[in-house]
Amino acid sequence: MKNFKFELLHTCKKSKARYGRLHTPHGIVETPMFMPVGTLATVKFLSPEEIETIGSGVILANTYHLWLRPGQEIIAKAGGVHNFMNYKGPMLTDSGGFQVFSLADTRKINEEGVTFKSHLDGSKLFMSPEISIEVQNKIGADIIMSFDECIPYPADYNYVKQSVERTLRWAKRGKDAHKRTDQALFGIVQGGDYPDLRKHCALKLVDMDFDGYSIGGTSVGEDKETMYRMIDYSIEHLPQDKPRYLMGVGAVNDILEAIERGVDMMDCVLPTRIARHGTCMTSHGRINIKKATYKEDFTPLDSNCDCYCCKNFTKAYLNHLFKCNEGLGNRLMSIHNLRFLIKLAEDAREAIKEDRFPEFKEQYLKNSNFDHRGF
Amino acid sequence: MKNFKFELLHTCKKSKARYGRLHTPHGIVETPMFMPVGTLATVKFLSPEEIETIGSGVILANTYHLWLRPGQEIIAKAGGVHNFMNYKGPMLTDSGGFQVFSLADTRKINEEGVTFKSHLDGSKLFMSPEISIEVQNKIGADIIMSFDECIPYPADYNYVKQSVERTLRWAKRGKDAHKRTDQALFGIVQGGDYPDLRKHCALKLVDMDFDGYSIGGTSVGEDKETMYRMIDYSIEHLPQDKPRYLMGVGAVNDILEAIERGVDMMDCVLPTRIARHGTCMTSHGRINIKKATYKEDFTPLDSNCDCYCCKNFTKAYLNHLFKCNEGLGNRLMSIHNLRFLIKLAEDAREAIKEDRFPEFKEQYLKNSNFDHRGF
Repeated sequence: MKNFKFELLHTCKKSKARYGRLHTPHGIVETPMFMPVGTLATVKFLSPEEIETIGSGVILANTYHLWLRPGQEIIAKAGGVHNFMNYKGPMLTDSGGFQVFSLADTRKINEEGVTFKSHLDGSKLFMSPEISIEVQNKIGADIIMSFDECIPYPADYNYVKQSVERTLRWAKRGKDAHKRTDQALFGIVQGGDYPDLRKHCALKLVDMDFDGYSIGGTSVGEDKETMYRMIDYSIEHLPQDKPRYLMGVGAVNDILEAIERGVDMMDCVLPTRIARHGTCMTSHGRINIKKATYKEDFTPLDSNCDCYCCKNFTKAYLNHLFKCNEGLGNRLMSIHNLRFLIKLAEDAREAIKEDRFPEFKEQYLKNSNFDHRGF
Repeated sequence: MKNFKFELLHTCKKSKARYGRLHTPHGIVETPMFMPVGTLATVKFLSPEEIETIGSGVILANTYHLWLRPGQEIIAKAGGVHNFMNYKGPMLTDSGGFQVFSLADTRKINEEGVTFKSHLDGSKLFMSPEISIEVQNKIGADIIMSFDECIPYPADYNYVKQSVERTLRWAKRGKDAHKRTDQALFGIVQGGDYPDLRKHCALKLVDMDFDGYSIGGTSVGEDKETMYRMIDYSIEHLPQDKPRYLMGVGAVNDILEAIERGVDMMDCVLPTRIARHGTCMTSHGRINIKKATYKEDFTPLDSNCDCYCCKNFTKAYLNHLFKCNEGLGNRLMSIHNLRFLIKLAEDAREAIKEDRFPEFKEQYLKNSNFDHRGF
């Protein structure tokens, strides 16, 4: 597609970690990157300027949620999601698949698509590869996703095999339905924990020649080692010259493991979701600001952090805001957590450029008291 | 007190409306002005920079609420409320009286003070003129208030007479207890709807020589004409060279009526409270953004408004945010409503300087479809 290009600029000499640049109609951004999630065309509590200031590359919006509210027609009339929410940087939408398979009730899957009930009002809805692409065309993000079946983990080999075949047929149908030349379309590699199915799915998608490739079916309950294997099984069959997007990953150790394996893009609601509960990511591990110990702590959340929250407010003030359920607390903590992961990716890029990514990763994890599940 | 001064620069030739300048330890601001309320040391959802950008002169915080959470000792340890919330402009605290008399349960008033139950956990609390001043000294706002009895309306003449005498004794005790020379202390004129009691209270307070005078006991259920009379009864006995603060007023027509009567300062939670329910003040009257009619309205809330919300977002986007209960909606609408009232005061100042305040007021109210109660 026009205006979209991935430049692979450097691969770390000691790992598969790669530094690159993604060209989109709304600007050029560097990879690897962590992408904030703005589910309903708003990164909760934050202004577009705040999102830019924390150094976001691409931000996400969720097709399923926008399809239900306000509907793609209103967003199209607004001139697309960038205009609608007044965000000038690059955006990405998922296909709606994950929400259809995780949020919605009473699904029925057949070859045509998925019938299910709205999580809002229980009304009956139908989503297909063509509808997903049409909705995403109208929403108008820079990067859009194929509609895939998101299977649970663990799943029986034969089921996963059939599902991968369907996901491939759906990917082809979505590609055929895709109408806009100014939106990059990614295919999604599925295949569970089965190396041959991951390989098969990846190779078939590559044959179809997508603008980029996502790794799906992770963060669905599998253990960390399994997730990392799924990444390896997928990436080894993907081309060097296309971006790779690991969907739904936002724990610090997962981000570092994924980058080391050659992932370029990641997203997760984790930093903003835990922020709203007062949980904060710091270079020394995670803390909950509501703890009484912070009541008289007049230092910033993380003295190594350059975010607006850490430069201007103390733990004591944040403790007070959270104790009183004040929205400013959610806002400041979201800024901090997002900046924390974006900075992590920035530092990772520097380490890759200087061929010291494995040391960087090891040092980073050693300095922080992350538990096994990371954040 | 040092660093505090009121300059009366001009009185409108056609009314009692006055233009002045208030010097405080945290800056010089112009009057008449509308003051945003930051109950718990946060103007809900807004950053200090946003508050400054909308042109706020002074912002309020509530002594009662800060006394309970986080407590004045923590604020004092933070270096005062400005440091605690990182706000660089002038601030004002009320005495806690209004909350003690309106929020709290099971009050007992005696000469010493008021015993009541916390609205948070029902614990027994005691507030006196000395405690109020001590708490306000520790919070550290630029302008603080005497602790007064806030009586309901209507109230029996004899009760109001006794109450005014007590309020005067409490004002004297508060003045004696006031320890800081860098905080201006205001006396509060009470007296209900009785002109002789308002006069008596005002004159006695003026004898005590406060840095400014508040008009209390309004917005407690009386009708508009009664409120305006209460203002007149109080102001006529107050000195020209001291600022006059009408407490708890934020409806457009009330603000204009008060300014016309010689009021310099006003505050109210109204603009931010209604904002959180999706109600918006515009130059054409009030609208509720949740109405379906705004779903596809791609114009700003108020095309005459220069606020961040109106310059960057449409009614359709705000409608979407409110439908989805997104915090950014509250934030943007609060910015708009506060800017709307601050701009009203700015325009009023220009009208006063040009001796056309009555025409300005008439024109303003004619252009807007305000109902009888204003906003």
